Amino acid sequence: MKPFMDKDFLLYNDTAKTLFHSFAEKMPIFDWHCHLSPKEIYENRQPEDIAFLWLAGDHYKWRAMRSYGISEKYITGDASGYEKFLKWAEIMPYCIGNPLYHWTHLELQRYFDIYETLSPKTADLVWQKANDKIASGSFAPQSLIDRSGVSHLCTTDDPADTLEYHSALRNSDSFRCKVLPAFRPDKALSIDLPTFLPWLESLEKTSGSKITCYSDMLAALQSRIEFFDTLGCRASDHAFAYVPYARAGIDELEKIFKKARDGENLSVEETDKYKTELFRFFAKEYSRLGWGCEIHIGPMRNNNTLMFNSIGADTGFDSIDDYRIAHGLSRMLDSLNSESALPKTVLFALNPKDNYVIGSMLGNFQTDEASSKIQFGSAWWFNDNIDGMREQLKALGNLGVLGKFVGMITDSRSFLSYPRHEYFRRILCGLIGDMVENGLYPSDDIESLGKIIEDISYNNAVKYFGV
Amino acid sequence: MKPFMDKDFLLYNDTAKTLFHSFAEKMPIFDWHCHLSPKEIYENRQPEDIAFLWLAGDHYKWRAMRSYGISEKYITGDASGYEKFLKWAEIMPYCIGNPLYHWTHLELQRYFDIYETLSPKTADLVWQKANDKIASGSFAPQSLIDRSGVSHLCTTDDPADTLEYHSALRNSDSFRCKVLPAFRPDKALSIDLPTFLPWLESLEKTSGSKITCYSDMLAALQSRIEFFDTLGCRASDHAFAYVPYARAGIDELEKIFKKARDGENLSVEETDKYKTELFRFFAKEYSRLGWGCEIHIGPMRNNNTLMFNSIGADTGFDSIDDYRIAHGLSRMLDSLNSESALPKTVLFALNPKDNYVIGSMLGNFQTDEASSKIQFGSAWWFNDNIDGMREQLKALGNLGVLGKFVGMITDSRSFLSYPRHEYFRRILCGLIGDMVENGLYPSDDIESLGKIIEDISYNNAVKYFGV
Amino acid sequence: MKPFMDKDFLLYNDTAKTLFHSFAEKMPIFDWHCHLSPKEIYENRQPEDIAFLWLAGDHYKWRAMRSYGISEKYITGDASGYEKFLKWAEIMPYCIGNPLYHWTHLELQRYFDIYETLSPKTADLVWQKANDKIASGSFAPQSLIDRSGVSHLCTTDDPADTLEYHSALRNSDSFRCKVLPAFRPDKALSIDLPTFLPWLESLEKTSGSKITCYSDMLAALQSRIEFFDTLGCRASDHAFAYVPYARAGIDELEKIFKKARDGENLSVEETDKYKTELFRFFAKEYSRLGWGCEIHIGPMRNNNTLMFNSIGADTGFDSIDDYRIAHGLSRMLDSLNSESALPKTVLFALNPKDNYVIGSMLGNFQTDEASSKIQFGSAWWFNDNIDGMREQLKALGNLGVLGKFVGMITDSRSFLSYPRHEYFRRILCGLIGDMVENGLYPSDDIESLGKIIEDISYNNAVKYFGV
Repeated sequence: MKPFMDKDFLLYNDTAKTLFHSFAEKMPIFDWHCHLSPKEIYENRQPEDIAFLWLAGDHYKWRAMRSYGISEKYITGDASGYEKFLKWAEIMPYCIGNPLYHWTHLELQRYFDIYETLSPKTADLVWQKANDKIASGSFAPQSLIDRSGVSHLCTTDDPADTLEYHSALRNSDSFRCKVLPAFRPDKALSIDLPTFLPWLESLEKTSGSKITCYSDMLAALQSRIEFFDTLGCRASDHAFAYVPYARAGIDELEKIFKKARDGENLSVEETDKYKTELFRFFAKEYSRLGWGCEIHIGPMRNNNTLMFNSIGADTGFDSIDDYRIAHGLSRMLDSLNSESALPKTVLFALNPKDNYVIGSMLGNFQTDEASSKIQFGSAWWFNDNIDGMREQLKALGNLGVLGKFVGMITDSRSFLSYPRHEYFRRILCGLIGDMVENGLYPSDDIESLGKIIEDISYNNAVKYFGV
Repeated sequence: MKPFMDKDFLLYNDTAKTLFHSFAEKMPIFDWHCHLSPKEIYENRQPEDIAFLWLAGDHYKWRAMRSYGISEKYITGDASGYEKFLKWAEIMPYCIGNPLYHWTHLELQRYFDIYETLSPKTADLVWQKANDKIASGSFAPQSLIDRSGVSHLCTTDDPADTLEYHSALRNSDSFRCKVLPAFRPDKALSIDLPTFLPWLESLEKTSGSKITCYSDMLAALQSRIEFFDTLGCRASDHAFAYVPYARAGIDELEKIFKKARDGENLSVEETDKYKTELFRFFAKEYSRLGWGCEIHIGPMRNNNTLMFNSIGADTGFDSIDDYRIAHGLSRMLDSLNSESALPKTVLFALNPKDNYVIGSMLGNFQTDEASSKIQFGSAWWFNDNIDGMREQLKALGNLGVLGKFVGMITDSRSFLSYPRHEYFRRILCGLIGDMVENGLYPSDDIESLGKIIEDISYNNAVKYFGV
Repeated sequence: MKPFMDKDFLLYNDTAKTLFHSFAEKMPIFDWHCHLSPKEIYENRQPEDIAFLWLAGDHYKWRAMRSYGISEKYITGDASGYEKFLKWAEIMPYCIGNPLYHWTHLELQRYFDIYETLSPKTADLVWQKANDKIASGSFAPQSLIDRSGVSHLCTTDDPADTLEYHSALRNSDSFRCKVLPAFRPDKALSIDLPTFLPWLESLEKTSGSKITCYSDMLAALQSRIEFFDTLGCRASDHAFAYVPYARAGIDELEKIFKKARDGENLSVEETDKYKTELFRFFAKEYSRLGWGCEIHIGPMRNNNTLMFNSIGADTGFDSIDDYRIAHGLSRMLDSLNSESALPKTVLFALNPKDNYVIGSMLGNFQTDEASSKIQFGSAWWFNDNIDGMREQLKALGNLGVLGKFVGMITDSRSFLSYPRHEYFRRILCGLIGDMVENGLYPSDDIESLGKIIEDISYNNAVKYFGV
């Protein structure tokens, strides 16, 4: 019996242990996609207690608590932090097999030096110990990032964002980690959502330009892209239920834009045309600037209308969609490739049924512009667990060149989430350790193999995004 | 080398053995969804031989025999029971990896004390031994159910069913197991099938009311629901290739109903509207009465027209459909949730591509009305095997709160199928035993973990359905 | 630690070793679907070097090289064979988990007696050793096929092909392997592609008949089918993104055909009707002649327009499509079955999401005309790896009768690809060895189990196709 989550957690043989402890473990972190707030990083406030750190904003945990049957009062309601923490401790033992179980204990171990397992029996002890640690300092955002060995991180920023905190962080000497903006124009593409017109106003304000037509909007967006670039932006990010592909010329796009401005409803075809061409505009810009283009495929958001009306988006009511995705994605990438304007692209699958569609799509558009120019993004959100990560790694291994993989990201809103990189590296070393010990890959040059592990852990992403 | 199917079958380490033998094994069975005939339970006839028990009605076995290349004469034809049994024995060794192999030997071991493996070499010996046992008694339905430790079971009953055998069983003192009806109004929803009008007549007859319009039908159905409730019904059941969501008002529903009554063809849109609104009617009733609502998603039935015309439905000619299911299901559940009328719901996936869609759908609608109010049903039909069960358990573990799972059902037409609960429990204990021994879950509180195993095996379902 | 790819590669216990070394290993190969050129087999030329053997035509390797970031010059460009070989050696260590890694080393071991692992460090040594071997002879196509133990192979031939090399090979005494044509009328079905009219001309030429209408074409095709049959054809092959099912009468088919002849565009509905009825015509012929009908479902071809225009089809720019496939396939098979004209059929899934759809579809149409008349084809193309093969074997085991499986094919263009049969057999023996050693299948009759392994390796296919 292996001890619970000890130093060899997820490492089941000597090769796995060597790969992790001699190579992966010591590498810094480049977290090239996360949802941390640059404002919070800049302001760098001390958290009040572990309830605040864990439960104030993490919709993964909220969702698990609802699934157990906890009342909303103890989730997003007016119960105290201590009460919420007790509820979290109550559900823990029932979360067998859930990554939250491992994340919770990795975070207790790494940030708090707490090795108890969390349950109703230990809740008060953990509460006390953790809060004592927090009170002693080094739990403010910059400390947590620094203690985690993060060399660079990319946040997620709207084109209309002023990036004022990014500018401020750039001018700060005291914080070693490079905090870079990433360009996420989802609201620009979401012409069919009520967020579109308010967003357009905010873009007008930030860009200082009047936007009366589609072309105006492109001009404003292009100026924002240039501005993002001056602040070190190296990555963009898009989310699609499916990647549309419906071509339209400028006249038609202007008409669609005008309808939206006038508050008229758009057909699915019109929306698809608008999204197709605007995405193509973005992609060409990314290609020109050498940015990476992340495409997250598959979420179905805000499924619960009651809760959306009550507490808004990103609160734990999203799930996995199941569109056909192969054709649109293929046509979109091909249209850009045919114009020599396909950027480096990272394709993320939320629905595991798409793993082999995406894993085989990569190979259609690889060139010598980059090592694995088209990447298969790491297992994401509902797949960010041992099974999901193993499936993504095996699919990529079977279909592409695993040694050139750009690896893990947290995709997280929490300052305590960096152990997910450790989790990923352990799973990676475990998988490859098994291959070696089973005679599927040679064992006689562990240094070269260790170098590949280091590359996947860190170097490949640094080179790919050019930070 | 582990012995073949001994007491530690599927239990690969000490933790797994402890969890099974000290906790799971001793729990009673609540089989909250099966296709047993209440009439047969009530009449409680002795079977003539093992061919009758195994081969008279089990379309799983028929299908395997056809796949091997056995002639229909020895399957549903006029060959003798003995001849059919010999054919079944002939195919056995070739069914490597098929759950029928394990079910067959579990049934021989548990009900007949026979430990030989079935093959042409042993066929006559097994035939003799098994039939001797049968001749000695305790193989009538009530004996088999009782010997299997079943405390409650829910059958599958049409709204037009009189439930006379349920009433009779309720008044029987001699039989310990509680046999409850479950409400399965598939024929009411299948307005597009030739079964609809005959069913409507039978509903008129049972309910004693004349049905000339949609509203009449609703009234008759509601009275049946009330009657089912008086007989202890706690669960309903629906099967959909996909869950439709197309809203319609009462006028439109009346028109659709009238067209159907007049024998006119309906469009897919009309059928979807009818099914949507009638299902919504049902769901609100279930919510009001606290019943659980089972939704089985994904079958494609009666694929073989020749055989359907020859031997009818449920004879082994169904397979897995592959619709997109996310949107309709999400909108349906949300529409009910928005009216505070979403019942406790168990979602079953027949197509394994839907495991993560469904596993992530649950979390959109959980509340404190029940522990894991929206459940992910156990691996079902074509997934009711080691791989399918492990996948369902892992998906639920990754996406939800496994400790609150309502567990296994047989979904079977056979009185010998209860070892499938044992099979499930062994797989569950094997999976969790692996987690513990691999350091993924703590080993220091086996009592609490054993309690969770007992809950998944039995207690959670009892509490969830309120029997 | 197991040694790297030694004699017990992929065999993790004694049962697996016994099953492979005492049973599977010694069986001949019947490669009933490949893309070898009968002309090259007949001409039987010595290859110049290992670069020619490995890199001149293998788009699997090309694709991997592009994924690593190699320039096209070293892939399909004008670099020397030696330079290309060095690039292949460079990417090797990064291809962890890719079947190309194993295929490369199996081929080095089996054909060249080279046991070094290929990497930049060993590239020159391997280059020298391999080319020395080639220079010493026995690397011409017939030698390679003979050394691989191939008793029969089926190529892939267009109806318009004269089969002249098949005729010539049939009359050759010196070559032991039987080379049979297989009927692949994809160009006949692809009425929507620019290849259609040129193909029609070539069919006119080969069949010596003028084709002015659909019925003319059917007559010409039927004469070709008869001719293929005289040359020992036992199998046909079709590829579909999805199997269409849209019925049409002869008048409508004639109109569609005329539109195509006149260069008019066809609607999707028209194309589907044409494909449906032409496939039905073919299938009835196959049924009449007792041929097997292979259906490969799921490719999306020629995704990269730039590269298609530059180097054409089958160069590594295909990937996996994701249509719904259940309905069309079910209706097509049922329509044939209802007319007692459903041939023996092997269904291949390219998209692993279809494994359980197809695995459960089989059972709808099984009869006693053959053992497992409807077969689930082995893991193919993007699934032709350890994970994909295990998934296919497990799905078939769970859903059908694994012991009647017709097993592996190379589907390859390379004369060095026969070790893929060995790879498959090792995976099969590994999987079944695990079942036995884990107590899931009895260990007491290894001879009978070994017989089943031999059947899956060779005998089942020989019997199924009737060679």
